[in-house]
This record gives sequence, structure tokens and C-alpha cells, in this order.
Amino acid sequence: MTDLKQIYRDYIDCLNGQAWSNLGTFVADDVIHNSNPLGLAGYRKMLEQDCAAIPDLRFNVEMMISEHPYLGSRLRFDCSPKGIFLGLPVNGRCVSFHENVFYQFDNNKIVRVRSIIDKAALEAQL
Amino acid sequence: MTDLKQIYRDYIDCLNGQAWSNLGTFVADDVIHNSNPLGLAGYRKMLEQDCAAIPDLRFNVEMMISEHPYLGSRLRFDCSPKGIFLGLPVNGRCVSFHENVFYQFDNNKIVRVRSIIDKAALEAQL
Repeated sequence: MTDLKQIYRDYIDCLNGQAWSNLGTFVADDVIHNSNPLGLAGYRKMLEQDCAAIPDLRFNVEMMISEHPYLGSRLRFDCSPKGIFLGLPVNGRCVSFHENVFYQFDNNKIVRVRSIIDKAALEAQL
Repeated sequence: MTDLKQIYRDYIDCLNGQAWSNLGTFVADDVIHNSNPLGLAGYRKMLEQDCAAIPDLRFNVEMMISEHPYLGSRLRFDCSPKGIFLGLPVNGRCVSFHENVFYQFDNNKIVRVRSIIDKAALEAQL
């Protein structure tokens, strides 16, 4: 069985390298993010916007567990979002927060993402 | 190897039945919730307070994945928190939101919980 963890590590490297033209290697054309049918183009746009809003954005995998065809990950961010982020006036301050996220794979590509960002933790730092 | 999913289902039944005297069957004495070393007594108190603040609280497991000694779960809540909940004036309105949570087990008991509740989704409903 395919090693989803290795695919996921490569996916995270793709994000951290902002290698957007490779994104389709890891993400399916019809990917759904939470309940939004973003598709690959919409998913790429979301990530590009995140990187524009957070110049020092870096995805750090704090833990991951895998049970085919799913992978769960806890990501940690230490970064300085510009202006308003998640509706909060971060304005370039350094903040730390987590994202708990479940990915569903099909044919070794991410088809569904169920993500929650810890907005309450972020808020507590402002 | 122990079936963590079955233990988890029984744990969720314990919560939904508010069978607090059984909580120690599933939760270790020195349990840590996010970065808070609540211990079993503090964890029970947190749950009891949640149930008091949300009279119709019910834990629904929407998905779970397990990789020993970890289990990840996406919980769905459809409920009516009283007054202020997560800092938001819910005041008894019916709301739906998710929690993405990772549990670490030791000796078949939960020793660490890394939980994020989707506050942004809740906020969007008010």
C-alpha cells in the first residue's frame, strides 16, 4: 500500500517551496476543502493568497497519523500575518497557532480536506 | 493490538451518557488537554461544565482514523449553547460546528488530547 505519509511530506515540501506548478501531483482536480468544491485551481489560489497574506508562512508538521485512505495532521505555524487574518487584526505580529486537518486520498492524491485552524489560540495572542 | 476505535466509541458513549464515574476507564489520571495538565479530575470538570453550558450537547463522531497509539477524530456538534460560548454570544441559538481532535493513548487510556474547535464556523452562524 502506498505510503501516504511520504506523499504528505512531499506535499508539504511543495507548499513550503511554493512550487505551485507541482501542486497537481498531490491534489486532485476536484478537491473539496471543508465544504467548498475548490478544485485544484481554487485550492492553488487559496494557498497563493495565504502566502501573500503571510510572507513568512511555513507549514510545520507537528504530528501525523495515517490510516488508508486518510491522513490526519497537526500543523504548527509561527508566522506574521499582514493586516487582518481570519478576521483578526494581526497586523504583522508574530503569532503561533495550530491547524488540525484530515485529508482523504484517492489514487494517491488529496481529494478532500477537513481543516480547522485554532482561531481562539490566535485571538488570545492579540 | 488493542482496538483504539472501539475504546473510543465506548468513551464517546460515556460522554453522551454523562457517566462521569466511568471516565477514568478511558482517561488517564495525568491527562493533558492541549497544553493544560488537567488530570482526570480537571478533565471531568471541563466536560461537566461543557454539559452545563450546553444542555443538548451530544458528541457525534463524523470520522475517525487510528494509528497506534494515536486516534484522530472529527466530531460534529448540533446544539444550543447557553449565553456566551467560546467568547461568542450564542444565547441558546442552534448552531452546528466541528472539532478536529487527536488523542494519544497509553495503556488503553487517553493521555493527551490535541483539540481544535471550529470557532470561525460558529461565528459565521451568529
